[in-house]
Amino acid sequence: MIAIAERINGMFKDVRQAIADKNKKVIQDLARRQAEAGAAYLDVNVGTAARDQTGAMKWLVETIQEVVKTPLALDSQKLEVIKAGLEVADKPVLINSCQADPEKLDTYFALCSEKNASLICLTMDKEGVSQDVAKRLDNAMTILTKAQEHNVPVEHIFIDPIFLPVNVDQRQPKIILEVIQQIRLMSDPPPHITCGLSNISQGAANRSLINRTAVVMFAAAGMDSAICDVLDKELMDAWITAEMLLNKMIYSDDYIKAAIASLRR
Amino acid sequence: MIAIAERINGMFKDVRQAIADKNKKVIQDLARRQAEAGAAYLDVNVGTAARDQTGAMKWLVETIQEVVKTPLALDSQKLEVIKAGLEVADKPVLINSCQADPEKLDTYFALCSEKNASLICLTMDKEGVSQDVAKRLDNAMTILTKAQEHNVPVEHIFIDPIFLPVNVDQRQPKIILEVIQQIRLMSDPPPHITCGLSNISQGAANRSLINRTAVVMFAAAGMDSAICDVLDKELMDAWITAEMLLNKMIYSDDYIKAAIASLRR
Repeated sequence: MIAIAERINGMFKDVRQAIADKNKKVIQDLARRQAEAGAAYLDVNVGTAARDQTGAMKWLVETIQEVVKTPLALDSQKLEVIKAGLEVADKPVLINSCQADPEKLDTYFALCSEKNASLICLTMDKEGVSQDVAKRLDNAMTILTKAQEHNVPVEHIFIDPIFLPVNVDQRQPKIILEVIQQIRLMSDPPPHITCGLSNISQGAANRSLINRTAVVMFAAAGMDSAICDVLDKELMDAWITAEMLLNKMIYSDDYIKAAIASLRR
Repeated sequence: MIAIAERINGMFKDVRQAIADKNKKVIQDLARRQAEAGAAYLDVNVGTAARDQTGAMKWLVETIQEVVKTPLALDSQKLEVIKAGLEVADKPVLINSCQADPEKLDTYFALCSEKNASLICLTMDKEGVSQDVAKRLDNAMTILTKAQEHNVPVEHIFIDPIFLPVNVDQRQPKIILEVIQQIRLMSDPPPHITCGLSNISQGAANRSLINRTAVVMFAAAGMDSAICDVLDKELMDAWITAEMLLNKMIYSDDYIKAAIASLRR
C-alpha cells in the first residue's frame, strides 16, 4: 500500500498560516507525524492563498526535507509550481497531477523522464470528469500509451479514477470498482491505482467511517494507493487489515505494528 | 444485507447455561437485542452440550418467538434437531446448513419445499472443505442444480463459500473473493451468498477489526449475507456503509440509523 499523506496542504488553515509566517515547526511536525504513521509520500500543496506559490513550494520542500526522508508528492495544477519543487527536491518525487490530455501528458511525461519522477494521472480530460466506466477507461488507455511513448515505466504511473462525493452521485463507487478492475487488466504489471480518498465523503456525515470503508472496498478491487489522512489511525488500521487479508502483508498477532514499521521510510 | 445473528448458540457459556436452567430471560434478552440491532434472522443453535437436543431446540424456538418476530435460522448438523425446530416455528425459517452432497441436498431441499424454508448450502462435500476456487464452484453448481430439481427458488438459497481462519491460510480471503464473484455469475438472479464471518478471525488478534474489514471486502464482491455478531456496532456500521457505497441503501446524513430501522423486523 502506498499512502500519500494529505495534510501538508494550504487548504488547511494551520498550513496556510504556517506558509504565511514561514513557521517551520508546524510543517515539520506534520511531516514527522505523517512519516511515523506510515506515509509512503508526503503530499505538498501550497494552496491557493499563497502569494508567491513557487517560493512557497520551495520553502515547504526544503522545510520538510530537513526533518524526514519520506519522498514528496508535489501537488499543484500549475506546472511552474511543480518545477519549483523539483528544483529543490533531493530525491525522486511523485507529481500530482496531470489530466489525460495528450498534450499535457507529453509535457508531464517528458518531465518525469528527465527527473525520474512518478506521475498521478487523472482519468479526466478537457471535457471534465467523465461519469461512466467507458470514458474513464479510454482516458486510462491514453495515459498508458503516452507513458510508453516517453519510456516512463508503468510502476511510475499512478492512475486516479476520480472519486466524486457519494452524497452527490451514489452510483459512482460501484462504477469506480469496475474501473479499477478494468484498469488493472490493461497492462501487466498494472499501473498503480490511487485516489483522492477524502473526496468520496465530501460534505457527508461519518466521514472517517465512509473513507475507511471505501479504502477497503477499493483495495479489494485492486487499488494500491490513496491520498488520504494517514493520521486517521482507524483508516490506516482498516487499510492494513485489508492488505493483510489480501495476502499482501503477512499475518502475525502484531501485524498492524509490523506493517506500520515496514511502511515508514 | 441479510445479517444472521450468531449469539444464540450453545457454544457460548451464557446460552449453554440458560438452556440447562430453562432460563428464558437470558435467551429473550439476546433475541431482543439482536433484533433491535438489525438482524434479519436469529440463528438458533443448541450447541453440543445439551442432553436433549431436539427438546432444547423446541424450547429455544418457542422462547424466542414469545418476544420477537424476527425469522429464525435453525442451526444444527442433525436433521432431527432441525425438524424439531420446524415443528414449532411460527413462520418460514432458514435452515443452517447442508453440505453440497447430492443425497443430502435431496433430503434438505425436499424439506425446504415442504416447509417453504430457505437453506444455507456449504460449498464442501464428503471430502471436506475444498481449498481452491474450482472445487468450491463445482459444489456451488451442484447446489444450484439440485435446488432447481426441487423447485426451490434461488432466493431461498444461501451459498456459503466457507471461510477458513486467515492465520491458518492467508491465501483464502482472495480465493473467496473470486469464488463469490463467480457464484454470482452462475444464475440470474444470483443466489444469496453468506458466510460464517467470525471464522475468518478465529484465533487471531484484532478479531472485530478483521471481521468488519472482511465483511466490507466480501460485500463489495457480491456477498449479501453473513452469520455474524450483530451486537458489534462497528461491524454493522461498516457493513451498512459498504451497502450505502454500493448504492443498496440510500445516503442521507442519518443513513446508519435509517438502515438499522429498515433492517429491523
